[in-house]
Amino acid sequence: MQTLEQAQDIMRKVKDLNAVSAVLGWDQEVYMPNGGAEARAEHIATIDTLSHEVLTSTEARRVADALRNEYNTLSEDDRTMITLFLRDHDRAVKLPDSLVRDTSRAQSLAQEAWKKARSEKNFSVFAPHLEKLIGLKIKAADLYGYEENRYDALLDLFEPGMKASIIRPVFERLRAGTVELLDRVKPVSESVNDNILRRSYERERQLEFGKSIISKLGFDFERGRVDLSAHPFCTNFAPTDVRLTTRIHENDLRSCLFGLIHEAGHGMYEQGIDMKYFRTFAAEGTSMGIHESQSLFWENVIARTEEFWQWALPQLKSVFPEQLGDITARDFYRAINVVGPSFIRIEADEMTYNLHIILRFEIEDGLINERIRVADIPEIWNEKMRESLGIVPKDDAEGCLQDVHWSFGGYGYFPSYTLGKLYAAMLWMQLQQDMPAVRSHIATGEFAPILEWLRTNIHQYGRTQTSEQIITRITGRGLTEEAFLSYIGSKVKDVYGLAD
Amino acid sequence: MQTLEQAQDIMRKVKDLNAVSAVLGWDQEVYMPNGGAEARAEHIATIDTLSHEVLTSTEARRVADALRNEYNTLSEDDRTMITLFLRDHDRAVKLPDSLVRDTSRAQSLAQEAWKKARSEKNFSVFAPHLEKLIGLKIKAADLYGYEENRYDALLDLFEPGMKASIIRPVFERLRAGTVELLDRVKPVSESVNDNILRRSYERERQLEFGKSIISKLGFDFERGRVDLSAHPFCTNFAPTDVRLTTRIHENDLRSCLFGLIHEAGHGMYEQGIDMKYFRTFAAEGTSMGIHESQSLFWENVIARTEEFWQWALPQLKSVFPEQLGDITARDFYRAINVVGPSFIRIEADEMTYNLHIILRFEIEDGLINERIRVADIPEIWNEKMRESLGIVPKDDAEGCLQDVHWSFGGYGYFPSYTLGKLYAAMLWMQLQQDMPAVRSHIATGEFAPILEWLRTNIHQYGRTQTSEQIITRITGRGLTEEAFLSYIGSKVKDVYGLAD
Repeated sequence: MQTLEQAQDIMRKVKDLNAVSAVLGWDQEVYMPNGGAEARAEHIATIDTLSHEVLTSTEARRVADALRNEYNTLSEDDRTMITLFLRDHDRAVKLPDSLVRDTSRAQSLAQEAWKKARSEKNFSVFAPHLEKLIGLKIKAADLYGYEENRYDALLDLFEPGMKASIIRPVFERLRAGTVELLDRVKPVSESVNDNILRRSYERERQLEFGKSIISKLGFDFERGRVDLSAHPFCTNFAPTDVRLTTRIHENDLRSCLFGLIHEAGHGMYEQGIDMKYFRTFAAEGTSMGIHESQSLFWENVIARTEEFWQWALPQLKSVFPEQLGDITARDFYRAINVVGPSFIRIEADEMTYNLHIILRFEIEDGLINERIRVADIPEIWNEKMRESLGIVPKDDAEGCLQDVHWSFGGYGYFPSYTLGKLYAAMLWMQLQQDMPAVRSHIATGEFAPILEWLRTNIHQYGRTQTSEQIITRITGRGLTEEAFLSYIGSKVKDVYGLAD
Repeated sequence: MQTLEQAQDIMRKVKDLNAVSAVLGWDQEVYMPNGGAEARAEHIATIDTLSHEVLTSTEARRVADALRNEYNTLSEDDRTMITLFLRDHDRAVKLPDSLVRDTSRAQSLAQEAWKKARSEKNFSVFAPHLEKLIGLKIKAADLYGYEENRYDALLDLFEPGMKASIIRPVFERLRAGTVELLDRVKPVSESVNDNILRRSYERERQLEFGKSIISKLGFDFERGRVDLSAHPFCTNFAPTDVRLTTRIHENDLRSCLFGLIHEAGHGMYEQGIDMKYFRTFAAEGTSMGIHESQSLFWENVIARTEEFWQWALPQLKSVFPEQLGDITARDFYRAINVVGPSFIRIEADEMTYNLHIILRFEIEDGLINERIRVADIPEIWNEKMRESLGIVPKDDAEGCLQDVHWSFGGYGYFPSYTLGKLYAAMLWMQLQQDMPAVRSHIATGEFAPILEWLRTNIHQYGRTQTSEQIITRITGRGLTEEAFLSYIGSKVKDVYGLAD
């Protein structure tokens, strides 16, 4: 079938260009000298524009029309693939080339400005870039179209089918449950602390330990690598080339290790996608929410259990014998599960983390719907921090400048993190039923069956199943905050010795 | 003038794609995990094909035709630029897209095969790739066309205007002069040795020292960086983003340091190109021969003088006090200028190096003209080594598998190295006349006036002047081996205490 082959050819070209753009982005964050920023912005813009041109060319439009006509004659597998092709094509044709190029260039420059602003703790360095990007995203959202809320058009880029009106009530119940739990912890908050994690841990050894742990979890270093960057991320150029980054704080053992496990969770998802989808539109995670469910599953659900540290602590002690000599797995487990208000999202505990996300969701929704002005972000941010967590950042570097997302244009991305937590808890409930020995597997470092369960149920499919299909098939129901509140409630009560 | 703008637009796209391809190539050599090779080959092929498509599109052909008609109405600057545009366009249209794509993919795979073959010392792993690439290059040469020798069509890619018939007599006189000098050294070869360079030098410190030296020579780390790779190289994505690589041998101080200075010579050339040429076809070194003249100028002409070590040795001693405690600048200068037969081109001394190049030139000329078969390369290589240097490699890793060039399709590239040496010596003769204090500048580490002389006379022009124009303008004459033979003769006689 000729049009099918033509569609595959277009997909290959687009996927190649997107992979190349990812290489350029990776290098920009990891190794590029400062002077290279301007040229890099041009290069990424050229590649992104070309990718958009290929997907929206006269030929692509003709192929898309032909496939719509032939759709009913296609095999089931081909239909799945062509649905993805048409989904991306139809969305792409809504944006003019000039908007794509302007956005790409603005994003590259904004990323440099963000780095500068953050290091100088000066929001005004970043503000004009943010303003420009939000204007471009509003334009894009209006061109994509939406039913209820302009923000939904952007949400859909990261979590297909998701709407602000679905998220809001779930988030509200989640916030209520979280605040209730936080209130129970407050009176006993002094009973657990993370002091042991804040001793001095030599940087290079932290990194080596983290790499050895993710290798044992199942991250394949023949098909991936780890580097350092200001903000940890995972990117991939193929299932056979997955790049993770982390950062290291000498006086906080968590940053490097849990950052790495988190990114490795993303990475193992990408490495697990069936190679038959290579260079097709199916060859990526199905949504950011499912992606985050994988990273958070490994980072929190697995690596923050007491069983995990029964296995891992002896290894960590052999790397840092002086710092950790007399610590037990239970001590360590309690230290890494301290909960309480903090400023930095990616260093927040598992429970209060969601409050950081809800804040960002509300600000983004306000920005995109033009109820909030860019200039007012620092003030609104700080006010919301006070309201939800009871603390106020001392400067914008630990406030509204902490995240990279707005600089790369990822508006609508943040909710994925909390969706990921909710999905991860739902998966964990199911995994315990499917694999009653799972806790003892963790305690003995047998991660292969767990990774296999994720591969079989989720990874292999790439984008050929939606997040809703995946979650419903595995757990028998749709999105809920209940599993998470139950999971985190048990853990926090255990850690703080609270009654049920 | 509209067609002029269209040509500039095409040049920008092509330059961006070529820069992106260079990023992919850099990453492949420096950081890519093994598993990523196959995907990377596809990605580079897609980018190279697109670059070729843009340069040979219907629009580009129309623009080229229009500019040929308008040529006489253009300003002088525009004519220079359009000459470059037409030169590259006219050459590109000679190759069909399929050949470009096949070549790109074959090169990517050949590079991986070469690495494997070299590490396994097994030529047969590389041979089928080599065979395929040579077949593709013969096709390309025939499509480009030539007057005298098929090899000229490939030479022209690296040294525009150069011909085998110009090179051969120069190389023959050079060989005769070299062998004569080598014969004079042989009886006294024991009087100088490089033992001090072969002590144990900690790797990380070697790298740091090398980086500090090239920074003082003028390599700008705000607009460039240094990494490690199997084979040292310099690549650039813009004058503002120049990447060098080196490799480190713990027991040979030369490999990292002189490798870095060499690559920094290339890098400073690229960093010195006038930014007004950014994203045009003028924004690169004018030829590989001139490029090599810059790297070899810094590596050999500057950094192998006694004066250089009067300045640099105290710094090196502070890094390696135990190894170098009682060494004088004169001792060091003699040690780094030891000459004699050796196996590895890039570790050969300044004088016998050319014999390695002449060997490769002869083999390449034979391969491209189908007088030599791929299977016979190891035998012919070893025979020519015996003839010219009197030694035979113990395996192909130190023989015909040592160089990366044939795996990336760089046939016709090798002669550039010797052309570079000849140009560098010609430039050095002239610089000593233009700047009588040059040796005392070197002895006090004042490299800025030297770099400025190169910038003013060579770097700034990019490709807007040919190598012949540059050399003739600066030295008043064309290519000759005389300056080099005189320069190297003086040095070797000084080092070995031979009479004039």
